[in-house]
Amino acid sequence: MLKTLNTGDLTPKEEITSRIDNLRMKMTEKGIELAVILQNVDIFYFTGTLQRGVLAVSAEHGPAFFVEKSIFRAQAETPLDIIPIKRDKEVKDILIERKMFPARCAMELDVIPVAVYERWKAMLGQDTIGDLAQIIRDVRIIKSEFEIAQLKKSGEILDRVFKKAGDVIKEGMREVDIDAELHAEGRRWGHQGFLRMRGLNQEMMSIYVTHGYSTTITSGADVPIAGIGLTHAIGQGASVNVVKRGIPVIVDYGGGHNGYITDETRAYVAGSLKELFQKPYETARDIIDGIMDFAKEGTDATEVFAKAFDRVKSAGLEEYFMGHGEGQVTFIGHGLGLEINEMPVITPRHKTVLKEGMVFACEPKFIFPGEGGIGIEVDFVVRKNGLERITRTPVDIIYV
Amino acid sequence: MLKTLNTGDLTPKEEITSRIDNLRMKMTEKGIELAVILQNVDIFYFTGTLQRGVLAVSAEHGPAFFVEKSIFRAQAETPLDIIPIKRDKEVKDILIERKMFPARCAMELDVIPVAVYERWKAMLGQDTIGDLAQIIRDVRIIKSEFEIAQLKKSGEILDRVFKKAGDVIKEGMREVDIDAELHAEGRRWGHQGFLRMRGLNQEMMSIYVTHGYSTTITSGADVPIAGIGLTHAIGQGASVNVVKRGIPVIVDYGGGHNGYITDETRAYVAGSLKELFQKPYETARDIIDGIMDFAKEGTDATEVFAKAFDRVKSAGLEEYFMGHGEGQVTFIGHGLGLEINEMPVITPRHKTVLKEGMVFACEPKFIFPGEGGIGIEVDFVVRKNGLERITRTPVDIIYV
Repeated sequence: MLKTLNTGDLTPKEEITSRIDNLRMKMTEKGIELAVILQNVDIFYFTGTLQRGVLAVSAEHGPAFFVEKSIFRAQAETPLDIIPIKRDKEVKDILIERKMFPARCAMELDVIPVAVYERWKAMLGQDTIGDLAQIIRDVRIIKSEFEIAQLKKSGEILDRVFKKAGDVIKEGMREVDIDAELHAEGRRWGHQGFLRMRGLNQEMMSIYVTHGYSTTITSGADVPIAGIGLTHAIGQGASVNVVKRGIPVIVDYGGGHNGYITDETRAYVAGSLKELFQKPYETARDIIDGIMDFAKEGTDATEVFAKAFDRVKSAGLEEYFMGHGEGQVTFIGHGLGLEINEMPVITPRHKTVLKEGMVFACEPKFIFPGEGGIGIEVDFVVRKNGLERITRTPVDIIYV
Repeated sequence: MLKTLNTGDLTPKEEITSRIDNLRMKMTEKGIELAVILQNVDIFYFTGTLQRGVLAVSAEHGPAFFVEKSIFRAQAETPLDIIPIKRDKEVKDILIERKMFPARCAMELDVIPVAVYERWKAMLGQDTIGDLAQIIRDVRIIKSEFEIAQLKKSGEILDRVFKKAGDVIKEGMREVDIDAELHAEGRRWGHQGFLRMRGLNQEMMSIYVTHGYSTTITSGADVPIAGIGLTHAIGQGASVNVVKRGIPVIVDYGGGHNGYITDETRAYVAGSLKELFQKPYETARDIIDGIMDFAKEGTDATEVFAKAFDRVKSAGLEEYFMGHGEGQVTFIGHGLGLEINEMPVITPRHKTVLKEGMVFACEPKFIFPGEGGIGIEVDFVVRKNGLERITRTPVDIIYV
């Protein structure tokens, strides 16, 4: 019955094997003998199940998956053998028995809290444990066809929500009431419930409805548009601000299916679009079209940014591009997968050569202080000869 | 305009001062000279704003609040002076200027990732930095009247949602459709959007709708009822399971207002309640009534658990109490505040003497494998002479 109630495909065995083999290969390159993986998303990626436990992967001997709880669910979901444990203190002796330890160890130091790390150092009797973060990023950056299929299903939810938004959004509505209707619509079509962002203080909602003033407010988050939120204790998302004619309502929505996140943005306008926003909208469209013509396997992400920025400069919109003042961010796109801040980042700051199977959102957006903002966001998978869109949702402004 | 759009009260200056003074006092007791606070919720607690930045608190000299972004929002929200910085590398020199450093430092080692910690050790030139986690827990465990007022407003949202559930839930509905309607209702009444749980891998939704089989499934989370979820990639929350007559629909909902979380559970039944669930429901009610008669300032949390467990034993329900098999958890209640896993925990495992201003949820629940579950959850604030309820929502089963 558990299987019937799970609307997502289980991760196939060959997929798990190839992910773990990929990890082992990169560990060998870096001289890491044993990976000790504790973060839930990484455990899900390499095992196909999201239980409390520890995944140890030996470069030489392969995986040992220790599960504390739930063993019932783990057994139903992972193709790996399970080693049931009562507490993590049992792990070391079993690793020794299996000749996986002693070894040069590494952990996910980008997310593991110091207290947890110190506990593991003491349990394993290691003075230092290396960093696995970069290797895991490198393994996860290339999406398999199975993962791309999950992303496309995630995109179908997003498509339903953007369609519904055309019916829901009306002059005089509060942002938060639009948020309420659209979040509900996503759930009805199978949205997984929440989205994940990796790292300390990384919090997000699955929907951001902003309009006029609230689109322009700067926030602590590394995004061009965060919204005001209902309270300064959250500081992001929809507020009680009310929709007025001519000013774009910006809907930034993240689909979520089987863990995989899509992330697109559309603009809705009651009445006709105020002139201020027309050139920026056309520029955003040009940027998306230009990227689709230009980027493919082998293109450097810095060149993608440069091409986009050329269009921004031609339009004379540099000051408003990707935020204004302290709110301006230095990227135009970010990777997608099980977390919303995966690699690659499309930024002038560091080079990444695009490869087939990389997936990213491209989000040209313009913010005009005191007025509002406009933009588009579209998700792509990199292919040998170009970019493939993840969703089929049109990028046109929707007039309501 | 930012103020008009914020539906929550800003934290008053005297509240911030007293929180920081309390922290400084406890730091002095433990020989910590400088607290370096990076986690967003702790920064919000001690400053009243949730920006990217660093709060340094010297036991001798008081706070220095460094803000990277957004300075605009920080200025509108915190009563503290702001030190604008471009990057965290500037912090050390300013601390030295203010005679706050060199000093024996501590950080929130329960949540700060190793990579961030190592960076701060290098920036400050410190070999070791101590742990601030216990001190922060100890400061935050006692809620002020301002905080209790926020919790009560959070409880009003919860009350609206439980009322609405009586209209929404019907035989034949999928759990996820109930979730969609109730989540939307909460947003309309001002729910902040998401709830926070502290620590690695701690994820949660604001609503859990489970029914029959899905109430009984064990999960990796440390909760008696997690639900199946729509996908094994999330593994919690509502599923596509459909409501049948006589079996309780369990709605576990978290209100969220101005950061403050309430967390209660009610049972809804289409038709009449199957006999299996009747005694467990009465026992859960007795436990709640018993705790209200018994607990007050000075009571030990272990005695609260013991009294509850006596009732469970009299009813012969030990096997089903707080989960079954591997799903059984060893607490009956948990603290509430800005995070849902605050202190105190109501468990036989460790003593905590209840004090006025502590706030906790008490959640006697019973799980019957293959059948379903039933339970109640109610939030309390500890007072000198007893417990005060945070909400006024009746605990009766609602027949739909």
